[in-house]
Amino acid sequence: MKKNLLTRIEENAALVDRTMKEYLSAEGRPQQPLIDAMRYSACEGGKRIRPFLTLEFCRALGGRDEAALPYAAALEMIHTYSLIHDDLPCMDNDDTRRGKPSNHKAFGEATALLAGDALLTYAFAVAAGNRYSDAVGNLRAVLLLAERSGFDGMAGGQMLDLLGEREPLSKDTFLLMNRLKTGCLIRCAAQLGCLAAGYGEQTEAYRAADRFGSCVGLAFQIEDDLLDAGTEEGKTTFLSFMAPEAARKKIKELTETALEAVGAIDGSCVLREFAAYLTERTV
Amino acid sequence: MKKNLLTRIEENAALVDRTMKEYLSAEGRPQQPLIDAMRYSACEGGKRIRPFLTLEFCRALGGRDEAALPYAAALEMIHTYSLIHDDLPCMDNDDTRRGKPSNHKAFGEATALLAGDALLTYAFAVAAGNRYSDAVGNLRAVLLLAERSGFDGMAGGQMLDLLGEREPLSKDTFLLMNRLKTGCLIRCAAQLGCLAAGYGEQTEAYRAADRFGSCVGLAFQIEDDLLDAGTEEGKTTFLSFMAPEAARKKIKELTETALEAVGAIDGSCVLREFAAYLTERTV
Repeated sequence: MKKNLLTRIEENAALVDRTMKEYLSAEGRPQQPLIDAMRYSACEGGKRIRPFLTLEFCRALGGRDEAALPYAAALEMIHTYSLIHDDLPCMDNDDTRRGKPSNHKAFGEATALLAGDALLTYAFAVAAGNRYSDAVGNLRAVLLLAERSGFDGMAGGQMLDLLGEREPLSKDTFLLMNRLKTGCLIRCAAQLGCLAAGYGEQTEAYRAADRFGSCVGLAFQIEDDLLDAGTEEGKTTFLSFMAPEAARKKIKELTETALEAVGAIDGSCVLREFAAYLTERTV
Repeated sequence: MKKNLLTRIEENAALVDRTMKEYLSAEGRPQQPLIDAMRYSACEGGKRIRPFLTLEFCRALGGRDEAALPYAAALEMIHTYSLIHDDLPCMDNDDTRRGKPSNHKAFGEATALLAGDALLTYAFAVAAGNRYSDAVGNLRAVLLLAERSGFDGMAGGQMLDLLGEREPLSKDTFLLMNRLKTGCLIRCAAQLGCLAAGYGEQTEAYRAADRFGSCVGLAFQIEDDLLDAGTEEGKTTFLSFMAPEAARKKIKELTETALEAVGAIDGSCVLREFAAYLTERTV
C-alpha cells in the first residue's frame, strides 16, 4: 500500500517536472538569463506535494490530468517564487536550497529577484491559459491563486513571520501566520483539483477539499515542528504552545477530520493514504 | 484645448487614486504593515498615464468607467510593484521615489520586497474580479497583464536593462529592452480599455490600441532621452543610436502613426490630444 503511494508520488512529481519544463522551455531570447534562472528553481522541485493534491483531487472527481496540470504548474510556480524571494539576503539569507546553491547564489540577487517576480507573473498566464478547462473555471483558478498567495494569504503570512523576528508572536498570531504562510497554498492545491474537474465553489467536493487541505496542511506543520524539535532554540513553534503529546493528539485529530472530509468522494483512496502518509512521517 | 486635457488628466488621476485606495483599504489585520507598505507606494502615483489610456480607450469605445477602473487599477499595481522592486538595493538602489523615501527606505527591504510581491499578486485578483465585465473579458485581461509583465514583457526588459549594465547593448537589444520594459505596459493599458468596453483580440479597435500604445510608448521614451540628454554620461539611450534631429523626426512619425491608428474611432479626440501632449513635453 505505502509502496504504491510512494511510487504514485514519484510518478506525479515526474509528470509535474515535465510540465514545468515545457512551460519554461523558451530559448534563444536576449533576456535568456532570466528564463534560465526561473527554470533553475522551478524545474527540479522535491516532492511536489501541492501539485500532487491538485492532480489527485482532479482524478478522484473524475477529471483529466490535462486539465489539472496547468493549475498544478501555476501553483508550483508561485511556491517556487516564494522560496526564491524567501532565500534573498534581505529575508532569510539562505545560501542553499534543496541541496544546491539558492537562486541568488547561482544568478545574483537582481536576477533572482526578477526570476521570482517573473514566476509569480507567469503562474497567472499559465492558469488563465488552461485549454482543458473553460473560461469560468480558469477565472476561478486565477482568483483562488491570487487570493491565497496575496496579502490575505501567503504574503500576509510572510509578513507575520517577519514581525515574529522582531518580537514573539501571540498564539493566535502564530496560528494565523501558519495558516496564511503555508496552509493557504495547500488548501488552494486541493481546490484547484476540484476546479480542474469542473467542481466550483458551490459544490460539496470544493468545500471538502478546503477542509481536507486545511487539516492536512496544519497537521503537516505540527509534524514538522515535532521532527525539528530542539534544532532551533528560541524560535516560536507549535511546541511553544503545546506539549509534544498534545501535538501528536492534535495531528491525529486533524488527520481524522481530513479523512472524513473526503470520505464521500468515491475515488478518494489515494488522497486518504496521502493524508495518513504526510502526517506519519519520520523525516 | 490643452487646458482641458490637463484637467482631464488630473480628474482621471484622482479617480484612479480613489479606486486604488478603495482596493487597498483593508485595516486591522495582524499583517497590517504589509498593507500599509502597499498603500504607501500605490495610492499616490503621479500622472497615472497608463490608467488614463485604459479609461479613455474604454470611453472612446462607449464603455463604462466602472468596467475600466479595475483593469486600470490592476495595471497600476503592476507598475507600482515594478518601481518598488526596481528601487531595491540589489537593483537601482534608489532612496527616493516621487519626492518621498522609496518603499524600502520607509519600511525596510524585506517588507518592500513583500509589498511588491503582494501588489503584483493583488493585481490579478482585481482584474479577475471585475464585476462590470464578463468572465471572458476578465480572463483576457488577466492573460494580457501576465504576458505583458512577465519574462517576455516587462520583467524580460528589466533583465535586459541589468545585462546592459555589464556590457553595452546592441541597438537591436536596446530597442527590445525599451519595448519590453516600458512599451509593453503602455500597449497593455490601451488594450485593457478595449477589453473593458467589450472589444476583444479580433476587433479592429484592439489592434488600433496596440498600434497606438506602441507608437506613443516609444515616442515617449525617445522624448525622455531628449529631455535628459547629457545628464547621465556613458548610459545607452536612444541618442546613442540617433542624432537629436533624427530623434525628433522619429517622434513626429510615431505620433502621426498613433493618431492615424485611432482615427477610425469616433470618440478618440481625447486620445489624439493625449498622444500629441505626451510627445511634445518639455519636462
